[in-house]
Amino acid sequence: MEKKIRIGICGYGNLGRGVEAEIVKNPDLELAAVFTRRQPAESLQIKANAPVVHVDSAAEWKDKIDVMILCGGSANDLPVQGSEFAKIFNTVDSFDTHAKIHDYFKAVDSSARSGSNISIISIGWDPGLFSLMRLYMGSIIRTGKTYTFWGKGVSQGHSDAIRGIEGVVDAIQYTIPVDHAVEKIRNGENPELTAREKHTRLCYVVATEDADKKRIEKEIKEMPNYFDEYDTSVCFISADELKADHGKLPHGGNVIHMGKTGETNKHIIEFSLKLDSNPEFTASVLLSYARAAYKLSAKGECGARTIFDIPPILLSPLDIEEAIKNLL
Amino acid sequence: MEKKIRIGICGYGNLGRGVEAEIVKNPDLELAAVFTRRQPAESLQIKANAPVVHVDSAAEWKDKIDVMILCGGSANDLPVQGSEFAKIFNTVDSFDTHAKIHDYFKAVDSSARSGSNISIISIGWDPGLFSLMRLYMGSIIRTGKTYTFWGKGVSQGHSDAIRGIEGVVDAIQYTIPVDHAVEKIRNGENPELTAREKHTRLCYVVATEDADKKRIEKEIKEMPNYFDEYDTSVCFISADELKADHGKLPHGGNVIHMGKTGETNKHIIEFSLKLDSNPEFTASVLLSYARAAYKLSAKGECGARTIFDIPPILLSPLDIEEAIKNLL
Repeated sequence: MEKKIRIGICGYGNLGRGVEAEIVKNPDLELAAVFTRRQPAESLQIKANAPVVHVDSAAEWKDKIDVMILCGGSANDLPVQGSEFAKIFNTVDSFDTHAKIHDYFKAVDSSARSGSNISIISIGWDPGLFSLMRLYMGSIIRTGKTYTFWGKGVSQGHSDAIRGIEGVVDAIQYTIPVDHAVEKIRNGENPELTAREKHTRLCYVVATEDADKKRIEKEIKEMPNYFDEYDTSVCFISADELKADHGKLPHGGNVIHMGKTGETNKHIIEFSLKLDSNPEFTASVLLSYARAAYKLSAKGECGARTIFDIPPILLSPLDIEEAIKNLL
Repeated sequence: MEKKIRIGICGYGNLGRGVEAEIVKNPDLELAAVFTRRQPAESLQIKANAPVVHVDSAAEWKDKIDVMILCGGSANDLPVQGSEFAKIFNTVDSFDTHAKIHDYFKAVDSSARSGSNISIISIGWDPGLFSLMRLYMGSIIRTGKTYTFWGKGVSQGHSDAIRGIEGVVDAIQYTIPVDHAVEKIRNGENPELTAREKHTRLCYVVATEDADKKRIEKEIKEMPNYFDEYDTSVCFISADELKADHGKLPHGGNVIHMGKTGETNKHIIEFSLKLDSNPEFTASVLLSYARAAYKLSAKGECGARTIFDIPPILLSPLDIEEAIKNLL
């Protein structure tokens, strides 16, 4: 049997646990170790039968890891870890702070080149597969417009924003696409859509017993950037209800391009995702790009890459001949 | 302004005319010439303001064409032209005889290498974008199954098969996906589906006045490979009705993958096309891959490629920095 690709997981939150769970679905991959900042590292209990190592000792694993999957957050972890780990390992990450991606790319690229490693950044579904679809659709049909809708799904950022309000114990925010906006495009229109016309926001909030619910609702609905540009609904529920009915992290969405060829011929290209578990799906995408990182590195390439750069065949466990015969 | 990529069109049927119509939507591309087998070549009237040249003189255009788009048929034209032209030009084609693609790839690869050219084969939407989606989906979610549905759309092969029956003047065959089969997968099932359970076939037939319609209907419904494994409906209409109501070549379809992560979390990935004009859409796909062929050749690469091999960014008129900023 061929040697398996040895995967390291750095960070053991929702995403890291997703990667751990999905590695076993890939017979050509194996988990080498999980890296954590916890002290002592051994206090972290993981499900898989693999060593748990403190991140400060990661460099000692240089020859025992083929690709390190960076599962930390984009706000604080990746801006530091992305460049640091790219010096030592091939890496894949899901850096998703849109405004900073280009700077992040340059920093990671420089590190990856210095270490002769491959680093594939901003992988997942958005940024990630949705970005890829925006590129394919707009490159093929040069007229019209590409639209992105998110949901129905849980936005962690918006949920966290609500949790920061005084009197809120816990909260879950669902982003929901406006159906008739989606339908307009599917029916061959190219509408101009405001934020409010594309998505609504639905918030389930657990408040303290003595909280002023009117004030909390007002604070949510008027929160700049997060909620003020949307039609937002707020439902107060109990902690038990939140746990029972909103414990999963489903998500999804659509990328739709509507454009014309000739004078009047309309073409609608749509890519959609309906995901029961956002972190497990994102983990699956990361693993397929880990396979690509490994193959690129084995060819002697180095530097940072985005999803736009990666030849699709590199994601597959099939070789090109099998892919031609079975999938083309 | 940067030099435009000079496109040659070989073959001026539906697809060739589609390429001619769509080049103008791409400011970085220009039509250099149309190549035909017609004698004399000048007898072919084209819409664009470009020279019409006999295919036998194509080699004289070696330095005036950056990418030749081969718009001939897979049955007779491409098996010869694919290899011949790959010796002289970078080429893109839509070879779609599934069973022969691998042999075709090898023949074209050898020619393209001998001429130091790039040839991207089997481009379009199936084979083409649908193949690509089958690869992406199956590489990311390793469990479950990928399903392909075609239609509602006109199948040229099936229409031609009906036209071959005695007493038939003209015919159009629509392939139609079975809605509840599609819905099953969208609802998170992985059904085993027979040909009959996936698609129905609807035939509009113009018969000669004295034709035995019962016999024609029976011959259609029992035709092996084409119709016998499907539920087929046959409607006899007039030549005027056929022209008025069935003159366009719409098509489309869906690639859907349903698979699980963890133990029970379901993920549905779907790519769908709804096309008013099959040839114009296919032409648009060919043009984006012509851009990719040009870029690969400019990097000094040669040989045959499939849609699986092409880094997505090469399809785009954007450079990687613009793509990162605008689309990632």
